[in-house]
Amino acid sequence: MEKKKVVLAYSGGLDTSVAVQWLTDQGYAVIACCLDVGEGKDLNFIQAKALQVGAVNSYVIDAKEEFANEYVRLALQGHTMYEEKYPLISALSRPLISKKLVEVAHKENATAVAHGCTGKGNDQVRFEVAIKALDPSLEVIAPVREWSWSREEEINYAKEKNIPIPINLDSPYSIDQNLWGRSNECGILEDPWAAPPEGAYGLTVAIEDAPDTPELLEIEFEKGIPTSINGTTYPLSELILQLNDRAGKHGVGRIDHVENRLVGIKSREVYECPGAMTLLTAHKELEDITLVKELAHFKPIISQKLSELIYNGLWFSPLKNALEAFIEETQQFVNGTVRVKLFKGHAIVEGRKSANSLYDEKLATYTADDEFDQSAAVGFIKLWGLPTEVHSMVNEKKTVKN
Amino acid sequence: MEKKKVVLAYSGGLDTSVAVQWLTDQGYAVIACCLDVGEGKDLNFIQAKALQVGAVNSYVIDAKEEFANEYVRLALQGHTMYEEKYPLISALSRPLISKKLVEVAHKENATAVAHGCTGKGNDQVRFEVAIKALDPSLEVIAPVREWSWSREEEINYAKEKNIPIPINLDSPYSIDQNLWGRSNECGILEDPWAAPPEGAYGLTVAIEDAPDTPELLEIEFEKGIPTSINGTTYPLSELILQLNDRAGKHGVGRIDHVENRLVGIKSREVYECPGAMTLLTAHKELEDITLVKELAHFKPIISQKLSELIYNGLWFSPLKNALEAFIEETQQFVNGTVRVKLFKGHAIVEGRKSANSLYDEKLATYTADDEFDQSAAVGFIKLWGLPTEVHSMVNEKKTVKN
Amino acid sequence: MEKKKVVLAYSGGLDTSVAVQWLTDQGYAVIACCLDVGEGKDLNFIQAKALQVGAVNSYVIDAKEEFANEYVRLALQGHTMYEEKYPLISALSRPLISKKLVEVAHKENATAVAHGCTGKGNDQVRFEVAIKALDPSLEVIAPVREWSWSREEEINYAKEKNIPIPINLDSPYSIDQNLWGRSNECGILEDPWAAPPEGAYGLTVAIEDAPDTPELLEIEFEKGIPTSINGTTYPLSELILQLNDRAGKHGVGRIDHVENRLVGIKSREVYECPGAMTLLTAHKELEDITLVKELAHFKPIISQKLSELIYNGLWFSPLKNALEAFIEETQQFVNGTVRVKLFKGHAIVEGRKSANSLYDEKLATYTADDEFDQSAAVGFIKLWGLPTEVHSMVNEKKTVKN
Amino acid sequence: MEKKKVVLAYSGGLDTSVAVQWLTDQGYAVIACCLDVGEGKDLNFIQAKALQVGAVNSYVIDAKEEFANEYVRLALQGHTMYEEKYPLISALSRPLISKKLVEVAHKENATAVAHGCTGKGNDQVRFEVAIKALDPSLEVIAPVREWSWSREEEINYAKEKNIPIPINLDSPYSIDQNLWGRSNECGILEDPWAAPPEGAYGLTVAIEDAPDTPELLEIEFEKGIPTSINGTTYPLSELILQLNDRAGKHGVGRIDHVENRLVGIKSREVYECPGAMTLLTAHKELEDITLVKELAHFKPIISQKLSELIYNGLWFSPLKNALEAFIEETQQFVNGTVRVKLFKGHAIVEGRKSANSLYDEKLATYTADDEFDQSAAVGFIKLWGLPTEVHSMVNEKKTVKN
Repeated sequence: MEKKKVVLAYSGGLDTSVAVQWLTDQGYAVIACCLDVGEGKDLNFIQAKALQVGAVNSYVIDAKEEFANEYVRLALQGHTMYEEKYPLISALSRPLISKKLVEVAHKENATAVAHGCTGKGNDQVRFEVAIKALDPSLEVIAPVREWSWSREEEINYAKEKNIPIPINLDSPYSIDQNLWGRSNECGILEDPWAAPPEGAYGLTVAIEDAPDTPELLEIEFEKGIPTSINGTTYPLSELILQLNDRAGKHGVGRIDHVENRLVGIKSREVYECPGAMTLLTAHKELEDITLVKELAHFKPIISQKLSELIYNGLWFSPLKNALEAFIEETQQFVNGTVRVKLFKGHAIVEGRKSANSLYDEKLATYTADDEFDQSAAVGFIKLWGLPTEVHSMVNEKKTVKN
Repeated sequence: MEKKKVVLAYSGGLDTSVAVQWLTDQGYAVIACCLDVGEGKDLNFIQAKALQVGAVNSYVIDAKEEFANEYVRLALQGHTMYEEKYPLISALSRPLISKKLVEVAHKENATAVAHGCTGKGNDQVRFEVAIKALDPSLEVIAPVREWSWSREEEINYAKEKNIPIPINLDSPYSIDQNLWGRSNECGILEDPWAAPPEGAYGLTVAIEDAPDTPELLEIEFEKGIPTSINGTTYPLSELILQLNDRAGKHGVGRIDHVENRLVGIKSREVYECPGAMTLLTAHKELEDITLVKELAHFKPIISQKLSELIYNGLWFSPLKNALEAFIEETQQFVNGTVRVKLFKGHAIVEGRKSANSLYDEKLATYTADDEFDQSAAVGFIKLWGLPTEVHSMVNEKKTVKN
Repeated sequence: MEKKKVVLAYSGGLDTSVAVQWLTDQGYAVIACCLDVGEGKDLNFIQAKALQVGAVNSYVIDAKEEFANEYVRLALQGHTMYEEKYPLISALSRPLISKKLVEVAHKENATAVAHGCTGKGNDQVRFEVAIKALDPSLEVIAPVREWSWSREEEINYAKEKNIPIPINLDSPYSIDQNLWGRSNECGILEDPWAAPPEGAYGLTVAIEDAPDTPELLEIEFEKGIPTSINGTTYPLSELILQLNDRAGKHGVGRIDHVENRLVGIKSREVYECPGAMTLLTAHKELEDITLVKELAHFKPIISQKLSELIYNGLWFSPLKNALEAFIEETQQFVNGTVRVKLFKGHAIVEGRKSANSLYDEKLATYTADDEFDQSAAVGFIKLWGLPTEVHSMVNEKKTVKN
Repeated sequence: MEKKKVVLAYSGGLDTSVAVQWLTDQGYAVIACCLDVGEGKDLNFIQAKALQVGAVNSYVIDAKEEFANEYVRLALQGHTMYEEKYPLISALSRPLISKKLVEVAHKENATAVAHGCTGKGNDQVRFEVAIKALDPSLEVIAPVREWSWSREEEINYAKEKNIPIPINLDSPYSIDQNLWGRSNECGILEDPWAAPPEGAYGLTVAIEDAPDTPELLEIEFEKGIPTSINGTTYPLSELILQLNDRAGKHGVGRIDHVENRLVGIKSREVYECPGAMTLLTAHKELEDITLVKELAHFKPIISQKLSELIYNGLWFSPLKNALEAFIEETQQFVNGTVRVKLFKGHAIVEGRKSANSLYDEKLATYTADDEFDQSAAVGFIKLWGLPTEVHSMVNEKKTVKN
């Protein structure tokens, strides 16, 4: 009788290497699956290592451009910022990884999918809800959560099974990275009164070490998608990597956040998003000149819901599709160029222009060119203030607190 | 027969000086009223000048502490940011000025109130709606909007009436300032592709000129109100002025915004809010550790509505009172200390602590001290993902777009 | 030299007949344009009358099916209810009428468009904003608002110009009607303490006169659009007219509403919407079984914004398009049949079924067939309540008011 | 050594009677606690029965007026309607019962609290989250969820332990009732295509059996609280019971709802809320004339959040307190009288009046008394439509879909 097959999200690290063995012990044939979503992995090395530690098959997938176009694009256009601070790094890659795991499972006739998350983070929720949404018939296994070993017990098991122990095992940090940024939790970061040490950062220099000369970028957008920097066109994934590099050198995009996890606790995380913060800032400023007021004032409601929903693992859900349809409809006008100055940790928008710009100098000006009909304001104010005025007449000054 | 009296919001500048005469020409006895809301006016000079240009009486009022406690406090606790960028500088002072104008009108038995706004800005709306809310029986006059003179015509009238012409008349900028910041519009700023020139700024240094040594501040909050800096207690208005000074020296708080005015046009404004941005950042981070998730996720909805409402001139309205009641209820837990690093245009929160902190290291940690029950996650995820799972079972993969 | 042309929204009533003459007096060649959007007009009579009172050309357009498919459909799927009571009758037809006026203006090379609204209602806003959105170069004229005659003056003018005076001129009501319902304002209705008299109603019987036998309808929906009643398929406009008739006979859909107009006043209106209320109720119940919880809980936010926006005359705006894209994405699952009982003023949904139903008896049941994993609840509750629990531990009982 | 004490929410039914024994078997001394929240219980009988089946102490508490004033009042003023249909019956009483259980636990030095809910409903969440919020140190036990017996096993255990088996054990319904209504789930109701049978109802007559003569009520409100009916003053709990009786006789308040439970499933419930629906309708109409537009348009956002939060068991939470503060601030103007006609299942508001009414006949009228300045509309419309107009000028007709 054939062994049941499980597809494991494999990173090459200790946890998932041990999981290959542990799942094999449970009677599974393990198929490893590793994605590059922009963290710059050595996919060949990881592919080989998976086989070395016992996988029966090992997939590696360069998913950078798919990640950029299908996931990051929405985050950018939707201005998704969980709790107004965190631009959803891991939360964005989890659904794509889940999708690839399910695709491999279907190809391999696997009956189960496994991930390396513990039982107290958000990622376990994101993986499991995404996988169930994509194929409710698949079993989902979370070896690390199930075995609930201490670090020592895990190392003992690894030694016993001849699983190589990584050299940097004593790193106090737990890192996840993709195109859209790098997240870091644990260890010394757990005290929210302590400043994060420099060692916590990997994509950005400290502001103290940033160059004294600013760098100017002209970023061009078409339908809300950044397409070129200073006239050079890039595929979206490359453009973001470019910006991670350039803005990172200027110390742009460090975020230190005490956030509310879905599983009910507050945790402190340190993020670096040089490209993401540069693009989010530029995109917002382009919308400021191209979106009509009523739309500009409602879109943040959509953004907040979309942010929570993605953070909470509901990427593959009808609500996400409906929110995306809203966002997509709005982006047709978001064309133009934004000039960004990278300097000392800032991505400052110094100028923005667009063929779709609704900023009209002839209406806005206080010079003699003024085309605004100032007399219209009198009637406007009369009707605008009428409800409050009637309220005051009826209720006298009861409503005025001060 | 006695002349009708009008109370004029008097700034000492050309427009309102001319307005004193113009209103007198219309048959009014003009009572000038000037407030200091933190812009550092020479009140004695202005009081005298009003009389010199024809006012029959001249009031000057130091309203800094009232402005701080009754207006700025709510803006801080409510995180009011119009269009996620503008922390409501003039929009906050207009209701207080209106209130004082109405009080003086009542004291002087005046039948009218006048302001110096043109017909295309937001401030005319704020003044008129506030005054009508406070006393619907008062007539409101807007001389500048009514006379609709060109600059040249106004100067000719001033010369004819012996009204002193200010030296800085050729300034290309139109400035309004108070405790909470400084706003600047017009002239060269009207091209949104051009970077604002250094001359546009008055409260902050350029990042290029900011010191190479950071300054660390420990700001203490009680019930959401900042009370001390590095152990020294200040009244709120002084604390903010202190921060304007200290954070301004580090280039903190420059904002360049193309915004949607209530009167239907987009305009480009440059703001400087060193104290405001420092305090808003610190307050948000203190809330991040003291507010429960459900509350933290809903408060931004309140903030957005409050921001729009204040921007739109509806300070004296029942909705503002209800939103304020919401905010006030939330602030009892916002106690603690935030450590802010002022450096190169940034106000970076490096640490936060509170006796009301809901961040629990024993729950958040990945060390052996962990008290979080990881097994609870299994049941949680099952029910959390159940609606999406049922949806997928019923509708197969129809919902999954990618 | 050729006369300037104006396209007038012509109803055949006194106001717009007088407007034909008045506009002619102003030097315009008047092109009348009358739409049937479901009120059952005698289009031939109106076409002739327009020419009789002086129009140089007279268009009549049967727009019922376009109105149903492009305007009413969105109102139904979007559950638009202004202030949770008014299902947007006139507010829906105004943009379509505006669109047709603009089309005729383009065809006729007219430079102006005119409507018959007064200066205190919502419809003037809806017409003018829609027309400006469709073609900002067109002049918009509002004769009734401009001439501001008393009723007597208007009649004198009409007599003088040989314009026929309608017989029912003394009707105390002002009626507007289309497929989606009938609205009535003015006269005795203006006292909100008085019950509306029976004479105010035209589409529905009083509950007192409704039959003692209920009528059962099975309404089938495809992608959120009602397609058949009791197995008989109808085009949407006919289906609604059918329901107006059938549900009207049972007294369904009377609404008595004191509402907030856009122009700042409260007004009291009486509406009748037998078909609309039947369909809105049925559609909501079908969504209750076919939409996933997260989506069902957010859609009302979209509905509220869409209702306000349409009420406020912003149909032709990018925000409406984005909200519509959201709604459209959600309707693919809204397939199935709803059984409605019409009886004594009620449209009661007694049953609903769908191939996309997410109601799962095996999960919901308390019988032995139960497939719900009750043990999952323990973990779920632990994490669901964790933030509140930590809050209580930290802040003791400060938060518990009672 | 003394036995550990547990306080059990005791209803007198089979489940909680068995729970007394089961908890005793687990080594607890069981203190029974039964509340009357308006369901008309025989408290003496229940008190005695608890002791008979093995409780060491038995509390009975008449909590009707506290329930009305502290819980129902907020639901009424906040217009809480979960999914726009369910006015939160059980969801309102659970926090009060939890509070009383905790109070008794403190008085009796009990270390645990127990409830009789199963593992698939909402009430388990409401009890457990409320108890943890009130005293995180208390253990919470859910005997029915823990023992997970079939009905047969439970009856066998009861017989063995001499616990009386209720006569109506074979009722296919599961009922919960309080002042605010009666809820019913299970059995035949589980098929959402089938109409609920008459036997499912207990508080209301069928419309078919409702009297042919309407009943008129004048309900007076003070600060949003109903205080009298037709001139007779009642304490709130009695006023609601009165209305349950009077409106129930007219068949008012039947609700048939397929709802989304917090635990992830859809369930079909039948509710009867004659008093609640009458009061909610009347209160909304009084707000329609007394609340200013901006407030009236935002309050539903508060209502929706408050409804979800209470439904989801978060009554004792800081967000609820903040939402309540908002609501309370708004109610000072909600004074006046509403005339309601009870007839054939309807509670129709025929008239409303208030000293705080913002409806102004002189502004609303179309008669010669009109005081509305129609000329103001011209300027208003110009600025109101300006953003859309500029958008169209810039983007031509790209935005107009139709």
